[in-house]
Amino acid sequence: MIKKKTAVVALSGGMDSCVTAAIASKDYNLALIHINYGQRTEERELKSFHDISDFYGIEKKLVIDFTHFKKIGGSSLTDKNIKISQANLENQNIPSSYVPFRNANILSACVSWAEVIEAQAVFIGAVYEDSSGYPDCRPEFFESFENAVNNGTKPTTELKIITPIINMSKKEIVLKGFELNAPFQLTWSCYQNEDEACGVCDSCALRLRGFKQAGKEDPIKYKTRPVY
Amino acid sequence: MIKKKTAVVALSGGMDSCVTAAIASKDYNLALIHINYGQRTEERELKSFHDISDFYGIEKKLVIDFTHFKKIGGSSLTDKNIKISQANLENQNIPSSYVPFRNANILSACVSWAEVIEAQAVFIGAVYEDSSGYPDCRPEFFESFENAVNNGTKPTTELKIITPIINMSKKEIVLKGFELNAPFQLTWSCYQNEDEACGVCDSCALRLRGFKQAGKEDPIKYKTRPVY
Repeated sequence: MIKKKTAVVALSGGMDSCVTAAIASKDYNLALIHINYGQRTEERELKSFHDISDFYGIEKKLVIDFTHFKKIGGSSLTDKNIKISQANLENQNIPSSYVPFRNANILSACVSWAEVIEAQAVFIGAVYEDSSGYPDCRPEFFESFENAVNNGTKPTTELKIITPIINMSKKEIVLKGFELNAPFQLTWSCYQNEDEACGVCDSCALRLRGFKQAGKEDPIKYKTRPVY
Repeated sequence: MIKKKTAVVALSGGMDSCVTAAIASKDYNLALIHINYGQRTEERELKSFHDISDFYGIEKKLVIDFTHFKKIGGSSLTDKNIKISQANLENQNIPSSYVPFRNANILSACVSWAEVIEAQAVFIGAVYEDSSGYPDCRPEFFESFENAVNNGTKPTTELKIITPIINMSKKEIVLKGFELNAPFQLTWSCYQNEDEACGVCDSCALRLRGFKQAGKEDPIKYKTRPVY
């Protein structure tokens, strides 16, 4: 089958974006974009980006440095003076790791590239259910952003913003990834460390709980592996 | 009068953003943001940003480097292999200087900063009427983007996207600037040069025609000063 359509996929290197790329690859040629934004685990995530790109044999890649999030601050991910919240999966507040309006910045860059390479879609692995409560992961946000894309790009540009896992639980994402042979062993999710995943930050906790609920073993190494 | 509200103003250093800052300063404390995006006249524009900031006595400033537009390409402003269109003010096509979805990238960064500093508004000096026909300058784009902002930021964040000159002609912008004593002598609009404005690029042509129609003298120097 010849795939005629191209999709830009935002690939952080985490498990969500990896499964998103696996889903997108069924119908599209992929163009992979990775954004460094001054987060603590930037280098480790970039390695995952390249490893996953190689796994899928993708040559159309773009690595972007967003230096402004470090300057803007306001998040424990980009400002070392703000403590990373310990996981509390019952807590309904927005955690300190929230980077203000991050997904709009990421999507804007994706759309700019997509318009130049004449892609038909932008995929982003945002998760709403079972997520950390980031406001820029709400389905309404992506719908209204797609609207802004339609109003703000050339008449000949027709781009869909696709969030294929937004309503999945982490358990369902794990199962979907196994179904599509997504390379979980190459992914990185931890917000804290770059050698072995910490096991205790929000991101590790959500990941470990997802694998447990799916009845699967997470193939990456953890410093501590609490049971959530 | 004590101004209690804060507005982030995107200040390129051109005449439109300068008049926008002048308008915003009537009701808000200003926080000024400037974005380098690999455009040819980056350094000259940055000088104008600092000069205008000093003119208004603003200390809350942020300079951001967007390196991705150079990598993404697709515009004569950021890619020296693409020729800058000579001004043709009757032409209805999108000129080669269009940077794909630039305003969304700029606004996203403005909103991220605005959310951290708890501002109430983001001002951007986009012009629709009499503009170069960039799709990301349409009023519908800004309306839908404001919607995306409301859906994608914290419940406590209430931000307006304000485009005070969007329906003004260049003539009206010049007149508004004179009314508010905006420092036109400190601004830079040329897409081509950094020493003396070229007088023939789209941006110079629109500016010169605006001053002429307003019956005012443009205080900056031009290499050639055609009559439009």
